[in-house]
Order: sequence, then C-alpha cells, then structure tokens
Amino acid sequence: MSNHQRGLDLLARIEPDVEGRVARLAELHPDAARYVVEFGFGEILSRPGLTLQQRELITVAALAAMGTAPAQLKVHVAACLRLGVSRTEVTEAILQMAFYAGFPAALNGLSLAKEVFAQIEAPD
Amino acid sequence: MSNHQRGLDLLARIEPDVEGRVARLAELHPDAARYVVEFGFGEILSRPGLTLQQRELITVAALAAMGTAPAQLKVHVAACLRLGVSRTEVTEAILQMAFYAGFPAALNGLSLAKEVFAQIEAPD
Amino acid sequence: MSNHQRGLDLLARIEPDVEGRVARLAELHPDAARYVVEFGFGEILSRPGLTLQQRELITVAALAAMGTAPAQLKVHVAACLRLGVSRTEVTEAILQMAFYAGFPAALNGLSLAKEVFAQIEAPD
Amino acid sequence: MSNHQRGLDLLARIEPDVEGRVARLAELHPDAARYVVEFGFGEILSRPGLTLQQRELITVAALAAMGTAPAQLKVHVAACLRLGVSRTEVTEAILQMAFYAGFPAALNGLSLAKEVFAQIEAPD
Amino acid sequence: MSNHQRGLDLLARIEPDVEGRVARLAELHPDAARYVVEFGFGEILSRPGLTLQQRELITVAALAAMGTAPAQLKVHVAACLRLGVSRTEVTEAILQMAFYAGFPAALNGLSLAKEVFAQIEAPD
Amino acid sequence: MSNHQRGLDLLARIEPDVEGRVARLAELHPDAARYVVEFGFGEILSRPGLTLQQRELITVAALAAMGTAPAQLKVHVAACLRLGVSRTEVTEAILQMAFYAGFPAALNGLSLAKEVFAQIEAPD
Repeated sequence: MSNHQRGLDLLARIEPDVEGRVARLAELHPDAARYVVEFGFGEILSRPGLTLQQRELITVAALAAMGTAPAQLKVHVAACLRLGVSRTEVTEAILQMAFYAGFPAALNGLSLAKEVFAQIEAPD
Repeated sequence: MSNHQRGLDLLARIEPDVEGRVARLAELHPDAARYVVEFGFGEILSRPGLTLQQRELITVAALAAMGTAPAQLKVHVAACLRLGVSRTEVTEAILQMAFYAGFPAALNGLSLAKEVFAQIEAPD
Repeated sequence: MSNHQRGLDLLARIEPDVEGRVARLAELHPDAARYVVEFGFGEILSRPGLTLQQRELITVAALAAMGTAPAQLKVHVAACLRLGVSRTEVTEAILQMAFYAGFPAALNGLSLAKEVFAQIEAPD
Repeated sequence: MSNHQRGLDLLARIEPDVEGRVARLAELHPDAARYVVEFGFGEILSRPGLTLQQRELITVAALAAMGTAPAQLKVHVAACLRLGVSRTEVTEAILQMAFYAGFPAALNGLSLAKEVFAQIEAPD
Repeated sequence: MSNHQRGLDLLARIEPDVEGRVARLAELHPDAARYVVEFGFGEILSRPGLTLQQRELITVAALAAMGTAPAQLKVHVAACLRLGVSRTEVTEAILQMAFYAGFPAALNGLSLAKEVFAQIEAPD
Repeated sequence: MSNHQRGLDLLARIEPDVEGRVARLAELHPDAARYVVEFGFGEILSRPGLTLQQRELITVAALAAMGTAPAQLKVHVAACLRLGVSRTEVTEAILQMAFYAGFPAALNGLSLAKEVFAQIEAPD
C-alpha cells in the first residue's frame, strides 16, 4: 500500500470528514497536505510499536506542554475521543503537564480540551 | 497515607535508589525535593486515570518535544524501562515528536535515550 | 494553617473575587483548582524570602519571556496592580524582556498589559 | 545619519504607513517604539552583509519556528511581499520549518501568511 | 528519481562524508535516518522556490532563535560554508536573531558558529 | 553621557572584570559586544523605574523559565550576588518558576545557581 493510501486510511479512523480535512490543508498548501497524509499519517503515525490511541495521547501531552499549537491540540483531543480514549485519560495527560511544563500550559490545555468535549460525544 | 509517603512509594517503583535521588534533590533545595516527592509523585503522578507506564511515556514525549530538559528526559526514559515499557515504545514516542516538534527535537531525544539504553538492561 | 487556607488567603490579596476565580478553575478541573490554591498559592507563592510584590513581578517577566501564556500574563499584571506595584514597574519588567527574549515577546507583553491597565485603576 | 533616521528610512521600504506604525508602537510604549526604530531597524536590520530581502525571509522562518509571535509573523510576511520577495519564497521558508520545528509550527505559519496574501497584491 | 536518491544527492552537496553521517543517524534509529534522507532532504530541502543556500541560511536563523538544537545549528552552519555562504552571511543571520529572539539566543548561536568556523575553511 | 559609557558603568557594578567580559563578547562579534553594552546595559538595564537588583532578579527568573540560556543564567545569578541580592532571593525566584514553567526548568536553574554560589562569596 502507498504511504498516501495508508495515511488516508489512518486519518479515517480519527476524522469523520477526511476529504474536508485534506481539502482544508490543501488550500493552505497542496504539498503540506500531502506531507501530513504521506509522512505524518502514512509513515510516523502508522508505525508499529505503539497503538494509535497511545500515539494520540502522547501528542496531546506534548502539544499541551509546548503551548504553541492550540488548534492542533484540539484536533488531537478530538482524535483521542474518536478512538475511544476517555475524557479522563485526555484530561489526566494534560493535567500532568503542570508538573513538567508549568500550570499555564496545563490550564490552557484543559481549557482547549473542554471546548472539544462540548462538541464531541464521548464517555468520561 | 500522606502525599509524602505516597510519593516515596511511587518513586520506589521507578528508581532503584530512592534515598539517593531524594538526597541529591535536597542538596539542590530541600523544599524542591519535598515538592517533587509530595506534589509531583504524591499528587500528580499517583492520580488514577492513567497507568504509571502511560504517565512516564507521555512525559518522555513531552520532554523530547520541549527540548529544554535533557537530564530529566534521561531520568524518565530510565523510569519507563524500569516499569516494563519497552525500548521500542520509548523510541517510538520520541521519534513521533519529529512530526510535532521537528527533527532536531526527535534526534536529540533519541540520542539521550540511547545513552540510557546502554546503562539499563531492558527488553527491546 | 492548611495549605488550602493559606492559598485562599494569599489569593484574596490579589483577586477581588476569590470564589469566582476558584470556581472558574474548578469548572476546568476540580483538582487543577485545588493544586493552584494549595500548591501554587499555598506553597510556592506564600514562601518567605521574596515579597508577594516581587513574586508577581518576576512572574510577569517570565510569562512575557515565554510568550505562551497570554491569559495568565494578564492575570499577573492585574495582581501586580492590586498589590501596589506601579504600572511603570510592570511595564519596565516586560520591556526588559526585549533584551533577553526578543522584541516580539516584549511588544506582545506590553500589549496585554495595556489591556489590563485599561480595566484596573492604578497609579502610573 | 542617526540610527533614528536610518531606521525610519529602512522602515519606509517595507511599510506604506511608517508614521502610523510608529505611532501605534509609541502608544504601546514610546521607548519601545524608539528601540524598534533605532536599534531594530537603524542598527540590526540596516547592517551590511545580507540584503533586506534576505533579512526579512530569515525573520519569517524564525518567527514561524518559534510559534509565539503570530502578529509579528504577519508583519514580516507583508514586509517580504513589499520588498519583492515572492509568495512562493515566503511559503517555502515557512513550509521548511515543518522539518525543523514540526508541522504545527509550519501549518500555523502558512495560515497566517495566507491571511496576509489575501490583503497584499504580490506576484506568486 | 526516488526521494531517497534525491536526498542523498542533496546531502552530498553539504556533507563531505555522506555515508558516515547517514550511518551515524542510522545507529540512532534506522528509520530516523531514512526520514531525514527521504523526507528532509529528498522532499523538503530539495523543493524548488528557494536555493539550497537560502534554505540553509533560514535554518541557521531558525535554529539559533529556537535555542534548543545546538548540535544541529553547527551542522547547518557547516552546510552554509560548504555551499559558499560566507561567514559574514551566517554571522549576520544569527546576530539578527538578537532582535527577534533575544541576545542569549544570538550570543549562543554566534558561539556555536565560531566553533564551526575554526574547523572549516571558508571565506569571510 | 553616551549609551556606551553608561553601559560600561552599569556593567562595572555587576562584573569585576568589565574589560575581560567585553573582550570575550567582542571576540564572538565586535558589534554584538557593542549592542550588549550600548543597547542592553546602556539603554534597557539603565532605565529608571526598577532598581538594578530588581532587573537582575527578573532576568534570572525569565532565563530559568525559558531554559535555553544556561550560560547567561549563571552570569545573571552572579550579577545578583554582586549587587547584594541574597542567595535566598535568587533561589526563591528560580524555585517559583516550577509553578509557571515546570519542575525541570526550576531544577535545572537551581543546579546552575548552585554552581555560581560555589564560586562567589555572598550571604545566604
């Protein structure tokens, strides 16, 4: 299977509207969209060794710690929920960043997660 | 159980020489040592909702992404191995950060992990 | 006195609506609110060795330099003013960050401070 | 020529409304405005060794990588276009940051650049 | 031409010992080495729109501004020199970061560049 | 008085070997040295509104929080001690950053401060 197809298949597991999301990325830059699909999802995120649930959860933690990617943090919180990662797991991963990256990073991350929780049905 | 005792008990799961580590922290600052034990381990890391293995793995990812805490990254890579998280899982978590925080962050993280792998017996 | 009570007492010195602020934090996450009160205010900020005015001013400088916590920067600028730190002192602390963290960090910090200055009565 | 005059002259090459921009900076802080003009433009950016086009392009790349200065990134994307740097060159500089600072930094930078492209006439 | 071959060809322009560098990356992680070659050099850095000289110079600026990748900054300073970018251009790009990311970032970057200048013959 | 002379005079208050420090900066880059003296010390740090003690303490806090400038953090810890800022005040400023920038930042800062404390006579 090509990286492109593998990436799209993986994206379909966390994104109800794959075509829309790829189209929005392609409007930004067609090759950026291609890299996200082929390299990001088709290579990095589809590697064996960690489950996609684990991968999305560490991404949520890392983006919360970095504090420079609020839009992407919301995307990955949503991905977690769609994969069956519970709200509690998401919340705990972000809250833990208070210890490693400071309380502003954790509180801002919790606030962004809460916005996503209000939009997506998921168990606690 | 007090936060202090809970923190020490948790620390004992990932650190073969708890007394030594707490003593080194206390030399830096006695209250810093107390906060790490009571707040970090006794509160944050001992929360329910995620396993300690999950917590250590997201910490590794976040510290690799931040790129400002090489000593701590090594400590948490060692903690992962002692908890039975495999070398592959640690490596995958760090490598994934290439996509979210750039290749320098991921390569520097892999290099630090490799130093730890050389010191601690663990399955791949 | 418990850390919780000490934290609330300290918070009352910089926040006219302690209950409201704690309630908003608790809506985000009850334990995050507890940690901010007990650990942040009850432990860290109530330590001897620096006055609360000094502590709030170094927080303003650090948050301006980091550039990832605009909401918290505003909270701590307001805290400074309520403690009798002058607008000039706040402004100087932020402006100084131009030398250490670059002009974008300083200019964005000054812009956030100006928003707070428009809302809170304080001497220059 | 004074640093002040040299700075204003340089600013005039990238900013159609120099007076307005300096006035807005001066409202924030008169000395911040003076430092931007005298030190930033009058010293740093007017140094020999790199063209102003080169200087604006590396600034765009660096601000995209840092991810903490969206307003300034837009200002410097606009400066590039006004100096005859093409949209493609700007876009390539930002997209390249995906490799060094991660995809969120690059995608957020491309999104901000696109907002500027919609406002300023420039060749691709 | 495959991304892999294109990446190796590009790497050969800035690295006298391509095999050695790829081998060292592969020791860290075989797939990390492959991604650097195929994605980093074979896709990102071999894109049209900017010269390789321009691409290396913006990388130097961005890594200096970020301040978290000293080893990589040295690699890209060396790459600049091997491509005929002058020491002055490298120095100016780093020095400019004082304005955007603060003096510590610029001074640390200049110090790393100086180490490289001592090892590689290049015109000023 | 020129910015240059004002900068040198201020530097003399925190640096026993002004000539040596300026010479080391000038070896890195003559104009970087001039900017540090004229802009950093002659303009920013010699502004009224905060004492030099206050200015050095907020710099220590900000550099500890940023985590990317260990050499400069040590310089400014030393500056604090030479100005009569106590070890306790320095330590408290850094320890406080645990709350705002995370424990790794605070612990690394404390470790660097301790190195300076071992070299400079100062009251606790």
